[in-house]
Amino acid sequence: MSNPRPIGVFDSGIGGLTVVKALRDRLPNETVVYLGDTARVPYGPKSPETVQRYALELAHVLMQKNAKALVVACNTVSSVALPLLTRNCSVPVIGVIEPGARAALQATRNQHVGVIGTRATIRSGAYEQALRATDNNVRVSSRACPLLVPLIEEGLLDDDVTDRVIVRYLEPLLADGIDTLVLGCTHYPLLTGAIARVLGRKITLVDSAQNCATAVQQILDERSLQSPATEDGELHVALTDAADNFLNVARDALQLSFGEIELRPLP
Amino acid sequence: MSNPRPIGVFDSGIGGLTVVKALRDRLPNETVVYLGDTARVPYGPKSPETVQRYALELAHVLMQKNAKALVVACNTVSSVALPLLTRNCSVPVIGVIEPGARAALQATRNQHVGVIGTRATIRSGAYEQALRATDNNVRVSSRACPLLVPLIEEGLLDDDVTDRVIVRYLEPLLADGIDTLVLGCTHYPLLTGAIARVLGRKITLVDSAQNCATAVQQILDERSLQSPATEDGELHVALTDAADNFLNVARDALQLSFGEIELRPLP
Repeated sequence: MSNPRPIGVFDSGIGGLTVVKALRDRLPNETVVYLGDTARVPYGPKSPETVQRYALELAHVLMQKNAKALVVACNTVSSVALPLLTRNCSVPVIGVIEPGARAALQATRNQHVGVIGTRATIRSGAYEQALRATDNNVRVSSRACPLLVPLIEEGLLDDDVTDRVIVRYLEPLLADGIDTLVLGCTHYPLLTGAIARVLGRKITLVDSAQNCATAVQQILDERSLQSPATEDGELHVALTDAADNFLNVARDALQLSFGEIELRPLP
Repeated sequence: MSNPRPIGVFDSGIGGLTVVKALRDRLPNETVVYLGDTARVPYGPKSPETVQRYALELAHVLMQKNAKALVVACNTVSSVALPLLTRNCSVPVIGVIEPGARAALQATRNQHVGVIGTRATIRSGAYEQALRATDNNVRVSSRACPLLVPLIEEGLLDDDVTDRVIVRYLEPLLADGIDTLVLGCTHYPLLTGAIARVLGRKITLVDSAQNCATAVQQILDERSLQSPATEDGELHVALTDAADNFLNVARDALQLSFGEIELRPLP
């Protein structure tokens, strides 16, 4: 019986399951081990130093589980800790920023891209850097949207309060003239319906989860790390604190299935 | 030169400064050392075990600072960790639940009290227990309001989105027939204006910060722990992660003054 090495995915909490969903759809033979730091969520308002320290601890747990690749399913961590993680891990580390930036550049027609995310992600300027590294002429309008994560975690995915908050956050970006919007937080794909309703059809939404999964597939292919096509991949979920209501919200919205949650407190 | 021992106050984040404000107003001779766990905020959605572990770590830091009394300026911690803290600390430990419950019983005319707080506080049933321990006939209607803390931390203290969320949370309590409402979260006094606007004059608001300060004064008096009346008390603020925007919101709204923030990461 084979026991293929899993893909390790970590996030500050539950939101990264949107990346897991994209991975499961695209790579059904791969086993995925997900680790969510629910004991210290959210990372968005925290300092880069603290986020970096937490990220190394989570990566260490997944390396102990023999992960063959690490997916940083959190824009906040990807924006401030990717070089550090790459230096400290012996396996490929894939974040969500570069794949999202690449997809945004493919989508935009007027070379004007909007980015929304947590305070830490927007403050880091990571998307601007990634976008400009590829296309020096691109215009970027970005906006921190700190209320969206709590609204999503309350399950208000289809609610007039959420719509009003979205309008308030996005109006300045629309006024700026963006034609493409990067959902720069792993929670946000759960609001795709609401955001599309507010924006109408004229703006292309770029979902970092989908583009991250594409990047993972490329890396596994390049390094011959794929699991055999005969494998049925599984999903294992570990959390640093007991799951709350939002796990059910996400599981239902994403139609994911997994067994018992492993409780894995960090020191 | 005297160097009186401080009152140690801790909270999951910045919200406990409402208790500090009440202490400073009532006990101007006392020096207050505040410790906010901004690296792991918020505690509201977390499990009791995790909150207890964090609370012991924070208490330990304040004991090292030679605190003469510990004030748990966090309803979530008070609701799940007060007995544990009392057993593990050699100085008096004062929470916010019992003082708030006592004041609510003094205020209610129809013996029907409403309580709002974080998910962890409401789930613990701590206010119900404290209210019923004193008056077995009191009726209690309680409701978790998880969006209020993020709205406050965004600074939306006077905003139609916040008002709509408050209406939605409080309507069922009003329909139940409460005549008194306990603000069971240290953030909530910052919303007193908005909540009063929604409720009208017919409901008495009980602010746990004020009542906690009264309880602290009583304990200092009983145990002769007061600082000399000649002392000018000071306020020192330490945080486990770099301060974000909400520190400014709170400082301005509460008109507190303090010097440089001590950054005190926990292991």
